[in-house]
Amino acid sequence: MRQTRGVREIHVIGIGAGDPDQLTLQAVKALRNTDVFFILDKGEAKADLTRLRRDMLEAHVPEGTYRVVEARDPERDRSAGGAAYSPAVGDWRSARADLYERMIIEELGEEETGAFLVWGDPSLYDSTLGILEEVLERGTVSFTHDVVPGISSVSALVARHRTGLNRVARPVQITTGRRLAEGFPQGVDDVVVMLDAHQAFRAYAGQDVDIYWGAYIGTPDEILVSGPLDEAAPRIERLRAEARERKGWIMDTYLLRRRPAEG
Amino acid sequence: MRQTRGVREIHVIGIGAGDPDQLTLQAVKALRNTDVFFILDKGEAKADLTRLRRDMLEAHVPEGTYRVVEARDPERDRSAGGAAYSPAVGDWRSARADLYERMIIEELGEEETGAFLVWGDPSLYDSTLGILEEVLERGTVSFTHDVVPGISSVSALVARHRTGLNRVARPVQITTGRRLAEGFPQGVDDVVVMLDAHQAFRAYAGQDVDIYWGAYIGTPDEILVSGPLDEAAPRIERLRAEARERKGWIMDTYLLRRRPAEG
Repeated sequence: MRQTRGVREIHVIGIGAGDPDQLTLQAVKALRNTDVFFILDKGEAKADLTRLRRDMLEAHVPEGTYRVVEARDPERDRSAGGAAYSPAVGDWRSARADLYERMIIEELGEEETGAFLVWGDPSLYDSTLGILEEVLERGTVSFTHDVVPGISSVSALVARHRTGLNRVARPVQITTGRRLAEGFPQGVDDVVVMLDAHQAFRAYAGQDVDIYWGAYIGTPDEILVSGPLDEAAPRIERLRAEARERKGWIMDTYLLRRRPAEG
Repeated sequence: MRQTRGVREIHVIGIGAGDPDQLTLQAVKALRNTDVFFILDKGEAKADLTRLRRDMLEAHVPEGTYRVVEARDPERDRSAGGAAYSPAVGDWRSARADLYERMIIEELGEEETGAFLVWGDPSLYDSTLGILEEVLERGTVSFTHDVVPGISSVSALVARHRTGLNRVARPVQITTGRRLAEGFPQGVDDVVVMLDAHQAFRAYAGQDVDIYWGAYIGTPDEILVSGPLDEAAPRIERLRAEARERKGWIMDTYLLRRRPAEG
């Protein structure tokens, strides 16, 4: 990629859902084309996820050709201090834009290329693109950026269960645990739920619903459970609590599929 | 991968939305672990898409280590004859299961590994997994299978537009042109539309909707248009018609995003 003099470039790179082999060839090329990696950690999962990303870099990028800048992402920063970059008081969005802006100005040279490594796919329940846009709007630092799509945890989940996201010619909705708790979305029978800390699926006990659930998908800790919700739910709750206790954090997602009404 | 004696293995491999670099490392490994590739073509797009898949094989798999079996997918087979395998009369689903069953029995040795190469992601608006399940249920041939997730055209689309699929903590729905023509899905403001031959977005003219549209995403023919629907729609219609005329086929998809009501 040719660089215009004095214009910073930033890659936003989807690195897959946990399996290092889910990197695309395009992602590997972008990694090798990067001078500075910005690694934002999210508190409790820090050690494991930061190590996984560092392992990816070591596996694919020649040593000595890049720098790593680590910071604590303000989103989950419920405790004070510790990180090299700690956000100012203020709302999350603004605090995060402050942090990203500062990292880009202070750590990325004017003719260098930086990269943010995003778990899964940068387009799905990830805030990196929105924050970079806010930084650009502020106008204090300029850069060009591109996005390398990644395998989302949603794709990885259903691949492991060998099922589709949608049924023939039917829609699928991707939503959050909080929204699922408010009711099953209208007009769809297939719903993928992300960011669910409270197992909102329990509200649908007794209904004709199948669940395809997975945690730590694509990693050695992977756990998969599927079946009729009433049978699977107690098992998922137990496995989820045990895993969370054992590892200190959990990343899980699931597909709920309503069975068609009997004719 | 160790094989049990006498058990055929089948990979269903997502190969990305058109850019050969969207193959994952996992997909490349699966390609190299395959003896027989089943390439199903869909009529009009045959020449281009079959060539792209053959190019991928040539780029990543040593020559002479694999065989390719091509067939005409009955889904779009509106004309008669020509293909090595032509489906029996009957409904599509059954005809396709017939075809896949016959290819597996006749072309894949009992200790070999076969693969189906699926554009985008096998979980999204693709029928390969459903057909393989139907073949297994018939019980005339047994095999094990796994799924390698791919970059869907949906992920590729929004990556090229550098935007997200969902907005913060909001849901996104993926649906078809036919369903969009029946009305904007309830409860969501972000809707991705696939398989739309009739530009169903035109029904939403005059509303506060933005569109992010793309065709042949990730290929040298890529076309991208985004903006307020009323401004973008005529341009998309013109470009779409021209491209379709020029190439003889088109693959496009788009995201419709309703703007929040002014407070």
